[in-house]
Amino acid sequence: MSKRVYLDNAAATPLAPEVFDVMAPMLKDVFGNPSSTHSFGRAVKGKIEQARRTVAKLLNVTPGEIVFTSGGTEADNMAIVGAVRDCGVKRIISSPIEHHAVLHTIEEVERLNSVKVDHVNLTVNGEVDLNHLEELLKQSGEKTLVSLMHANNEIGNLLPLREVGEMCRKYDALFHSDTVQTMGHYRFDLQELPIDFATCAAHKFHGPKGVGFLYIRNEVKIKPFIQGGAQERSMRGGTENVYGIIGLAKALELSHENADEHEKHIEGLKDHMMSRLDAELEGVHYNGICCDHERSLHTVLNVTLPKTDKAELLLFNMDLMGVAVSGGSACTSGSNTGSHVLRGIDVSMERPSVRFSFSRYNTKEEVDYAIDCLLKIYQKEKV
Amino acid sequence: MSKRVYLDNAAATPLAPEVFDVMAPMLKDVFGNPSSTHSFGRAVKGKIEQARRTVAKLLNVTPGEIVFTSGGTEADNMAIVGAVRDCGVKRIISSPIEHHAVLHTIEEVERLNSVKVDHVNLTVNGEVDLNHLEELLKQSGEKTLVSLMHANNEIGNLLPLREVGEMCRKYDALFHSDTVQTMGHYRFDLQELPIDFATCAAHKFHGPKGVGFLYIRNEVKIKPFIQGGAQERSMRGGTENVYGIIGLAKALELSHENADEHEKHIEGLKDHMMSRLDAELEGVHYNGICCDHERSLHTVLNVTLPKTDKAELLLFNMDLMGVAVSGGSACTSGSNTGSHVLRGIDVSMERPSVRFSFSRYNTKEEVDYAIDCLLKIYQKEKV
Repeated sequence: MSKRVYLDNAAATPLAPEVFDVMAPMLKDVFGNPSSTHSFGRAVKGKIEQARRTVAKLLNVTPGEIVFTSGGTEADNMAIVGAVRDCGVKRIISSPIEHHAVLHTIEEVERLNSVKVDHVNLTVNGEVDLNHLEELLKQSGEKTLVSLMHANNEIGNLLPLREVGEMCRKYDALFHSDTVQTMGHYRFDLQELPIDFATCAAHKFHGPKGVGFLYIRNEVKIKPFIQGGAQERSMRGGTENVYGIIGLAKALELSHENADEHEKHIEGLKDHMMSRLDAELEGVHYNGICCDHERSLHTVLNVTLPKTDKAELLLFNMDLMGVAVSGGSACTSGSNTGSHVLRGIDVSMERPSVRFSFSRYNTKEEVDYAIDCLLKIYQKEKV
Repeated sequence: MSKRVYLDNAAATPLAPEVFDVMAPMLKDVFGNPSSTHSFGRAVKGKIEQARRTVAKLLNVTPGEIVFTSGGTEADNMAIVGAVRDCGVKRIISSPIEHHAVLHTIEEVERLNSVKVDHVNLTVNGEVDLNHLEELLKQSGEKTLVSLMHANNEIGNLLPLREVGEMCRKYDALFHSDTVQTMGHYRFDLQELPIDFATCAAHKFHGPKGVGFLYIRNEVKIKPFIQGGAQERSMRGGTENVYGIIGLAKALELSHENADEHEKHIEGLKDHMMSRLDAELEGVHYNGICCDHERSLHTVLNVTLPKTDKAELLLFNMDLMGVAVSGGSACTSGSNTGSHVLRGIDVSMERPSVRFSFSRYNTKEEVDYAIDCLLKIYQKEKV
């Protein structure tokens, strides 16, 4: 079989074998409905609550603050809809480069609930202009929700969560952060951070697809987004994705076990890629603030490449050579309208941009192979 | 290990081994994000679309009419919220013995959207009074949604779908049916049935938990319930529960393969239980119209038992003897407020009621053991 290199880990990551090992018996043997009071049900309920405690402990929150959902998107919907419906939010401050799970949900509450929406200015690198954010917050006479993602999924810029959170506190605004790209990649102390809602999708850190959670700070009271039974402590109707929840907790645990080591390994891959690209391909430009480890997610590297006649076929040709990378986020690639993030920060659409995203399973050899393929396309035939 | 008999299949069913076999490789080896355009993503996307075609074919609809969700509850929410938000529905006709996924969603749109809600009268057996339904429909000057479940999850009564659907057509009302208890247990020709929305949860027919779908008739246009990416043909944001979707399709396929045989086998179990209870326990009463195979779901038997001092401990004692049955639905058992369905049809709360629910994996011996345990509790010590 020909070589295959997967560098699209911001879209989805391979499931850790240890995660499969905890999920398989739950699929095969433990089939009760967790809401059933008999032994078959209790066995499953116990596993879910154990998973919730595991997650809560890793994030230093209480189990009651974690609501399992079908993924990050549902969690973002739940936070924004809940804040508007149940917390009196009349105004939302966000940015044009949020994930569509946030952007489209905000558009929906704007349309249905006449919520006022303001977008914060971005710097040329796609960073949130904190002075402008404070200006916007100062103007607010109404209850405000700030929704800004922790790491941008396409360019990797990190938001200074503490600083933004403290600003929100100062102006009595709620703070939601889409933490889908960073949960499982950094350690969080959510009790200590001034944040009201945070979201998670397990498939971003070697857990299963179709499961995530919403963290809701204890003091913030919202009602269910999905109406139904008394599941998730009456916060989300619907029989639980039991295997998914068990898998999520295991994946989060694994990601925390050697978090620093993983981060260092992945940073090494990113640095290696940047130094080879700098040396071997003229006219490369990095989008966002990739070069600064403190302000950029280590797993993501977004590169604008030199102009080429083959721009449209670039990803296709990489794919043919066995290298999986992406143009924008996976969630938008189906829609073929190009990246709203890159447009949002005025990246030239005349040159191709590629997002490389790494995981702890990637190797230096894989990165080298990907670069060799890229160079080959640019007619430096090294493969 | 002591004997364990599972007769709570209306709450959740054991996963079919064949379903596990198709899910496992998707968990272990095929990890791309289905929205990614590279080969890793396309491999997964192809599997999802194959699953959609399988489901569509079994129900005789087009693939575009099937939207995969996180389960039956989300599907019910999506149908009701969508009908009100996007189809101009100003009035809902439903019943007090619907599942909470429907009842609470209707309460929510009543509260938020000022939708008018009417409940149709029920007969003493919990059947929908079709004359009253027609009266209510006649009175309607506004766009109306009728939401009535196909089989009640606690007492098994079947709604005459065709008759109700035709009545809805006649009065230009939309028709949503919570078919969670019957999907996978009967064959449906949804193209031919006059129904606009139908729902499914895979764990009710030996598929995985945390996945289901909403069928939306082509002519009915609603927008997403969960806002986000362009997944599910832009009808539901969020990375798909890939393994769940694959498992659902396989489970539905299996359930259809020998559907008549399964039905006959399960009917046999139900009949056997009723005849033994009739013969050996005086004062037994069946809730709903259990005795009529044409009008009752074969998998469910709801029995009001003779008065006993041990009523409160009845389920607990059955559980101790290894028999899993339920008092109401699993989704409400966590809340400890008793069954709204049995209250809804005036079943005496002074006597214990038990729901037995069967699957194709149950045996006559298991049913006999459960009856023996029940009789033992009623001091006919046969165990």
